[in-house]
Amino acid sequence: MEFSSKLLERAVNEMSQLPGIGKRTALRLVLHLLRQPKEQTTALSQALQNMRSTIKFCEFCHNISDFNLCEICANPNRNETIICVVEDVKDVMAIENTSSFKGLYHVLGGKISPMDGIGPHDLNIETLVKKVKQGVVKELIFALSSTMEGDTTNFYIYKQIQDYNVITSTIARGISVGDELEYADEITLGRSIVNRIPFETSLKL
Amino acid sequence: MEFSSKLLERAVNEMSQLPGIGKRTALRLVLHLLRQPKEQTTALSQALQNMRSTIKFCEFCHNISDFNLCEICANPNRNETIICVVEDVKDVMAIENTSSFKGLYHVLGGKISPMDGIGPHDLNIETLVKKVKQGVVKELIFALSSTMEGDTTNFYIYKQIQDYNVITSTIARGISVGDELEYADEITLGRSIVNRIPFETSLKL
Repeated sequence: MEFSSKLLERAVNEMSQLPGIGKRTALRLVLHLLRQPKEQTTALSQALQNMRSTIKFCEFCHNISDFNLCEICANPNRNETIICVVEDVKDVMAIENTSSFKGLYHVLGGKISPMDGIGPHDLNIETLVKKVKQGVVKELIFALSSTMEGDTTNFYIYKQIQDYNVITSTIARGISVGDELEYADEITLGRSIVNRIPFETSLKL
Repeated sequence: MEFSSKLLERAVNEMSQLPGIGKRTALRLVLHLLRQPKEQTTALSQALQNMRSTIKFCEFCHNISDFNLCEICANPNRNETIICVVEDVKDVMAIENTSSFKGLYHVLGGKISPMDGIGPHDLNIETLVKKVKQGVVKELIFALSSTMEGDTTNFYIYKQIQDYNVITSTIARGISVGDELEYADEITLGRSIVNRIPFETSLKL
């Protein structure tokens, strides 16, 4: 791609560093900014800069926060004996949106993935094991993606804490609400039969 | 969407102002920046800011440029008697990539579109008419999209300059290279038969 301006070229190059944004999309976005008032570009740049330079991670659960302790960990009404282990900040937001969980979270910051060069020591696993060792936590809920990397991470953490007095569970795997049975994959369908729940229980959900 | 941080929320909101970027995509992009070194965010913000505040538009053709006159207009080897009229900077880049045009460009900055509130006076049409009046230009090539708005814009400009001694042409409409005939729309197929070209000519393309 030949650019008529070095400034434009640099902006497009930086924009296309973002995941899923190619050169063409980057050019479209940058040209859009050029058509908008200058203030919009200033606001975007400053918001990104401010966020990147001053955002904090919660000391307790590693969730993104403006303070040393995130709102969830600082809330005295949350149940500190149950910890939901998630991969990412996005997962905290997704679970919070369901309003079905009143415990605390622990954000690992990724999954063990040797292919991507991510080992257990690149994740926030040590602090989780430390929390379990302190004895306040009664249950750990593994809420990672149901992939090989997710299962590996679950198992690694399980091995570290199995000698301590803590219940471990994983979120239920099964047919999504609204899904047609015939399109479900075999493993999901098989597991959903093995892990069937009493009909009376399902009525209460 | 509930955010655990105001800084994160502001960054996501600003990012989702860009066309085709929803809140979820914006969150994914912003979280990606958080995982990368701070320098990447700084580079992105500064590139956008620099571009928006210091970029210029060529005084002659309205193309994006770092100088008062763009590289194409400043090049003495380009043929100043042929002007290709395009909608956008992206179109200049696309035509330049084909290396098939050695004249100059005129960037309108959009198409006449009453639905979007864009009239002839919002576009760079006056400066184009002025160029034609000066008498240097011998041919205008309309290279706008083949849509109702594009055709309207072509016709509006044509009406303004028809009394001057200038040839007007539009880029050829026809079946794209590699396209199957059976999937072509009727209008394109019809036009491509009416505007057929000698086989000997097509061999030279």
